[in-house]
Amino acid sequence: MKGSLFQENRMADQETCSIGGDLACVPALNARLGPGCVLTGAEDVIPYGFDATAALKQRPGAVVFPKTTSEVVDIVEIARRHRTPIITRGSGTGLSGGSVPVENSIVMCLLGMNRILELDTRNLTLLVEAGVVTQDIFNQADAAGLLYPPDPSSMKVSTIGGNVAENSGGLRGLKYGVTRDYVMGLEVVLADGSVCWLGNKCVKDVAGYNLRDLFIGSEGTLGIITKVLLKLLPKPAARRTLLATFGRMDAAAETVSAIIEAKIIPCTLEFLDRKTIHCVEDYARVGLPLDAEALLLIESDGHPAAVEDDVTRIAALARRHGAIEVNCARDAVEAAQLATARRSAFSALARLKPTTILEDATVPRSELANMIRSIQEVAQRHGLDVATFGHFGDGNLHPTFLTNERDADEMRRVELAMGEIFERACEFGGTITGEHGVGLAKKPFLRRQLGNASYALLKAIKRTLDPDGLLNPGKVVDA
Amino acid sequence: MKGSLFQENRMADQETCSIGGDLACVPALNARLGPGCVLTGAEDVIPYGFDATAALKQRPGAVVFPKTTSEVVDIVEIARRHRTPIITRGSGTGLSGGSVPVENSIVMCLLGMNRILELDTRNLTLLVEAGVVTQDIFNQADAAGLLYPPDPSSMKVSTIGGNVAENSGGLRGLKYGVTRDYVMGLEVVLADGSVCWLGNKCVKDVAGYNLRDLFIGSEGTLGIITKVLLKLLPKPAARRTLLATFGRMDAAAETVSAIIEAKIIPCTLEFLDRKTIHCVEDYARVGLPLDAEALLLIESDGHPAAVEDDVTRIAALARRHGAIEVNCARDAVEAAQLATARRSAFSALARLKPTTILEDATVPRSELANMIRSIQEVAQRHGLDVATFGHFGDGNLHPTFLTNERDADEMRRVELAMGEIFERACEFGGTITGEHGVGLAKKPFLRRQLGNASYALLKAIKRTLDPDGLLNPGKVVDA
Repeated sequence: MKGSLFQENRMADQETCSIGGDLACVPALNARLGPGCVLTGAEDVIPYGFDATAALKQRPGAVVFPKTTSEVVDIVEIARRHRTPIITRGSGTGLSGGSVPVENSIVMCLLGMNRILELDTRNLTLLVEAGVVTQDIFNQADAAGLLYPPDPSSMKVSTIGGNVAENSGGLRGLKYGVTRDYVMGLEVVLADGSVCWLGNKCVKDVAGYNLRDLFIGSEGTLGIITKVLLKLLPKPAARRTLLATFGRMDAAAETVSAIIEAKIIPCTLEFLDRKTIHCVEDYARVGLPLDAEALLLIESDGHPAAVEDDVTRIAALARRHGAIEVNCARDAVEAAQLATARRSAFSALARLKPTTILEDATVPRSELANMIRSIQEVAQRHGLDVATFGHFGDGNLHPTFLTNERDADEMRRVELAMGEIFERACEFGGTITGEHGVGLAKKPFLRRQLGNASYALLKAIKRTLDPDGLLNPGKVVDA
Repeated sequence: MKGSLFQENRMADQETCSIGGDLACVPALNARLGPGCVLTGAEDVIPYGFDATAALKQRPGAVVFPKTTSEVVDIVEIARRHRTPIITRGSGTGLSGGSVPVENSIVMCLLGMNRILELDTRNLTLLVEAGVVTQDIFNQADAAGLLYPPDPSSMKVSTIGGNVAENSGGLRGLKYGVTRDYVMGLEVVLADGSVCWLGNKCVKDVAGYNLRDLFIGSEGTLGIITKVLLKLLPKPAARRTLLATFGRMDAAAETVSAIIEAKIIPCTLEFLDRKTIHCVEDYARVGLPLDAEALLLIESDGHPAAVEDDVTRIAALARRHGAIEVNCARDAVEAAQLATARRSAFSALARLKPTTILEDATVPRSELANMIRSIQEVAQRHGLDVATFGHFGDGNLHPTFLTNERDADEMRRVELAMGEIFERACEFGGTITGEHGVGLAKKPFLRRQLGNASYALLKAIKRTLDPDGLLNPGKVVDA
């Protein structure tokens, strides 16, 4: 598989990384930003050579830390003069290698652009710089009685700029949507150094093409997001959490379908398989049922009476579809414990084996049971250890391979299995990536999903916005 | 004002329209579609020379009626071979001249592509062809216990393809958003004849750039939308309608701000000024209070208990902010009457004078009172007759000039007033068009709103997707 995940990685291991100080543009960067904001020493830049994706790394030439949009513009212009690629990143929690540098590139880390600029309670908006941590945004909204719904599992560390660049999902996607649904405006620095403001505080605006949405999810390849205007919602008055235990995977999937067909939209509808349940319980000790084949963690929020009704109806549906047990969290503390346990699934699984490869194949909700069966069949056939959890309400699964990147044969089989899983997701009308992005890791599979015409269109857009190929080259699509 | 609304119109009036049959591509169109699907006679094509925008018209060379995507592709290829522009339209209810043809062009009317292809109750989606009337989509969803929320005032006539191309709004925008928020996938025919499918039934999908949203609101200038996959919602269990009467405009605006600050999000929050109230009552006879300066029509929907709470709190807030009277519709019939009355505002006003120019300047909700004062001041200064109504909850106003296109001096003053109103909307952080689109009518004002960098980006996108400028030329932006 040409240019695939592991080939990229092997290449990075074999080649000698350049020493960053050799980059011709470093003196200009130092002069503009001051030396404290430009790193070039090997030991300094190595931490910026990878993200949270297993087995992908490449040492950059330099790492820069701008503090203002005007510094970002000047970095882009310096880089352009020297034809040096720029890789923009925040905290580096990405799971598709989207912020892994290329050789002799500048990594631009936006963690220094972390100011919350305006909370507007009359229009329910929040204006922030790209480097603000997502949890801080949630907290800021929460303190004003408001809700910022997108909650990627990494939200305690990840930045809003990264979330917007990846169009991050999270646990509340079913009812509340994803990051895209909360972005009202963006400031973007383009490859030519021009600064665009796209969007505003209007609930309705149809003046010109929607270019804001083109940058959301563009993974740093079309422009550099420097500011974000977010939409907030009133905080729901009540919230209840249910835990439903199943002896059969299919029964859990059928329950999810039944809930949606009954026209109930919970805010979260999370799924854990047996292996994940055991790992999470071992890690978090919250009393998950160890005899279950599948577990659904369901949260409803809204008006107290509506939540009460939902919870009663959901519990009845789960029982009717074969749940062994349905328990309601007694209070907010127990509910928070369960949510935290679910959020720890990735960390819990990561303890088992040296390398954890977390995928995010996603299908229409109606195909969930089929997709889970396919994942199990594929993993078994290739002799691989896989755990699956994810956002069942969204059809967004996280098949997680527990493996060892030093075992070349096993890695080859993981790669084969992943290709087959993506193929099945496409056959079921799904996507190769529900929330992690294409980055490096999914790039070889993108054309299969999109088809030739749409893929050609993607390339044309990349060429138009980044004609010299300097913005995060090698990711998503080549111009 | 170069290239502005009325200049375009005068040009159209002065020049001799070509006879359609002269278009060199007509024989090829006839051969492909059969003569019944190609109109060229002057009397046949004239009805396709204008939309619902006052004072804009241009006779096309031919009108074609494809029934399949494959016919659309062939029409595009024939047109491209002959370098003949294509203007795509549905029912022609647009209010910015977006489907007004250019000389010697082909109008492609998609009313024949009106099949509802699939209602998927497991995934809550509806797949339709572009020519399906929006009301039919609402009805189809409603019959299955589901809701298609976008409800542009024209929905009984307008088509979904037109709604998507314009990203139409409606009365439920505050709570439910606009057309864009319900489009999960699109089939688009590009200028080179290739067919792209963008999107799918997945709630989450981040595979590649979001090109689907680029076509939503592109007004037929980037591609031709042939199929639409729509997202449906569970139908809310309850709905209540309130009518609040105010002696002062400011009191109505303050009530709206207070409702939002109290974290209540009604599904509609409509506003009528004194002139509109009188016209609507004269037209619809539903018992609107004729002594009011302003009227708010407020609808809440959702769980019965939540709706009850909302209505009680909204009524209290309206009274606290100076409402003279607050009445709750007694039943669904009375509620429907009120909603219909509001929907008839445009038609009611259109009876007063020969020409009705309906604008849609939109501002952040917090600027509503300022914007309404500006509209009144500007109209008064230019000696013009203006009525204002609109979606207060969205900050989306409809200042409506009641005028006569044969009175050249008055039209000149309308044009001046409109320019000033758009300028004020931009100053308040708003937009020149909240839901009607740029088309021909707003084109001269677009750069002012977007700024040079974003405007240049728009042009670059147009050039990339329509290099020969054959798709709805002259609208939105020139390449």
